Amino acid sequence: MIKFDEQKQIESVNGALALRGEIERIVDEIYDTGFDGIYWIGIGGTYASAMQAEVYMRGKTKLPVYVDNAAQFITTGNPRFTDKSVMIISSVTGNTVEMVKAVEKANAIGARVFGFIDKAEANLAKMCSYCISYPANEQLKFFMTANRLMYRNGEFPEYDRYNKEMEAHLAQALADVEKAADGFGKEFAMKHCEDPIHYFVGAGVQWGSTYSYAMCYWEEQHWIRTKSITAEEFFHGMLEIVDKNTAVTVFLGEDEQRPLAERVAAFLPKICGNYTLIDTKDYAKHLEGISPEFRGSISHLVTHAVTQRIDAHMELINRHPVDIRRYYRRLDY
Amino acid sequence: MIKFDEQKQIESVNGALALRGEIERIVDEIYDTGFDGIYWIGIGGTYASAMQAEVYMRGKTKLPVYVDNAAQFITTGNPRFTDKSVMIISSVTGNTVEMVKAVEKANAIGARVFGFIDKAEANLAKMCSYCISYPANEQLKFFMTANRLMYRNGEFPEYDRYNKEMEAHLAQALADVEKAADGFGKEFAMKHCEDPIHYFVGAGVQWGSTYSYAMCYWEEQHWIRTKSITAEEFFHGMLEIVDKNTAVTVFLGEDEQRPLAERVAAFLPKICGNYTLIDTKDYAKHLEGISPEFRGSISHLVTHAVTQRIDAHMELINRHPVDIRRYYRRLDY
Repeated sequence: MIKFDEQKQIESVNGALALRGEIERIVDEIYDTGFDGIYWIGIGGTYASAMQAEVYMRGKTKLPVYVDNAAQFITTGNPRFTDKSVMIISSVTGNTVEMVKAVEKANAIGARVFGFIDKAEANLAKMCSYCISYPANEQLKFFMTANRLMYRNGEFPEYDRYNKEMEAHLAQALADVEKAADGFGKEFAMKHCEDPIHYFVGAGVQWGSTYSYAMCYWEEQHWIRTKSITAEEFFHGMLEIVDKNTAVTVFLGEDEQRPLAERVAAFLPKICGNYTLIDTKDYAKHLEGISPEFRGSISHLVTHAVTQRIDAHMELINRHPVDIRRYYRRLDY
Repeated sequence: MIKFDEQKQIESVNGALALRGEIERIVDEIYDTGFDGIYWIGIGGTYASAMQAEVYMRGKTKLPVYVDNAAQFITTGNPRFTDKSVMIISSVTGNTVEMVKAVEKANAIGARVFGFIDKAEANLAKMCSYCISYPANEQLKFFMTANRLMYRNGEFPEYDRYNKEMEAHLAQALADVEKAADGFGKEFAMKHCEDPIHYFVGAGVQWGSTYSYAMCYWEEQHWIRTKSITAEEFFHGMLEIVDKNTAVTVFLGEDEQRPLAERVAAFLPKICGNYTLIDTKDYAKHLEGISPEFRGSISHLVTHAVTQRIDAHMELINRHPVDIRRYYRRLDY
């Protein structure tokens, strides 16, 4: 399998899961001190992850949790963000300009900032009240933080069982999904490598990853045009431009918004002959050991394991190395 | 001028502005009774308007104001939405299934619902705690509600002057913008009537209208493909797929997020030879009587007056009557 180092990947996920003690100490300190709001803030790919953390918590918690875009936080701001608020961020490079400014603003207000900054030596890491530096696995780190917050708020009684299952099975399960999806990924990449535009549809925790997959992978890395749309909004405009040849992919996860994606999946065959469903349920046998009721919280990791295989083959088929950027961080803007 | 009845349009806007007394009585009752959250809820075009109302208030108020999508409210829900919460909605037909279900859920929780339901006889109108039935002008009705909420919360001291200016000048100003934009609208429609895809970029209160213009007008009515993106996110992926021929339109308003759109406008000429800026400042002379500091709150109405002219010409050029739907409300889904 190209671009797949099973051992390295398993270690990466298990290393993230092993951050739990550190995350719990930080979240406990935040929880015990009290706060008037938890703000998941990002831009681009990290905004997508912030949206996922917020929607994951939204339906389950009484805690005041919000999502905002760093650039909007800098310009529009929010008078309800105070010195009792907590900003949670993630940054790989630690030098994304909007993130640096957002954290500066939070610091000026006197709020606490909990950052997952991959590069410990980045200045942004020093600007955080709490910082964990561990590479990749952004969504996992966010969801571990969300889980502890809800556990402390008495809203996640299955917390211990959940963590036991994840720590025992998640890393291998994701690797197994990736292996199982390799054939599909190759076929999909061959079919869609020259798409003039590709539509991606998702809902719930799948929405952030759908948005990010379209924008941060296909547009930014593969230079293929995309549009991403939430499943519910698909029916309020976008459906009109779908015809038999339109390439549409629907991501189906297992959280409470699954019915919204299922509605698109059920409708598409009536009007489209070029659609694909990527459904986490199809990979259930690789997720054994993880209880069905917990699978909604990892659906986006499962579909990411699938799309990793598309990306690996797409890069080769299109002879377009995904590290090249035309403009991003190469021009002034 | 095709599809333009100046007198009718002026009366429509002035009629909406004349709802102020009624809106104030309802908002005052809500404010005096107290609430734990104001939730702007919609789907499709009304979700776009809800996003606009929320971002308009976000930077100015300490009030707990939120935006949610009706389909997400039905599925994911929000434990913080209680019998002390207020849902604000708008619906033209009064029978959009997601809106009906969202209001049913709000009623079951015991929350108050303030609805602008154009058809007074719709069942949805009867399901609202407070209802105003007056056609069109959805965003204006929402912003009038937002303004009164902020005024009552001591956050809008210029409220009286603001309303005097709007009531004296807004209706004529928007008609004048439309007349001034007719030539541009025709030229733009001729140039872009066969676009394989058109990109629309916006920020702040322009974002909801950018999203809605792309989806509810070009996709749903003109059957032309679009992608809409917020100005800040343009730089985190989408820029990579823009080349000299890519059709990109940037909407520039005059609220606090204007710098985000200006950044895109300044960058585009470096990589794109097929871009258009629709800037409300270009229509300043038609907005005389409305103070510059209030123009951010009507920027989306100004750009709508401009895009109305594009739509009128596009419909004729493409010989595609905008009332036709291929699938929307014509198939089961």
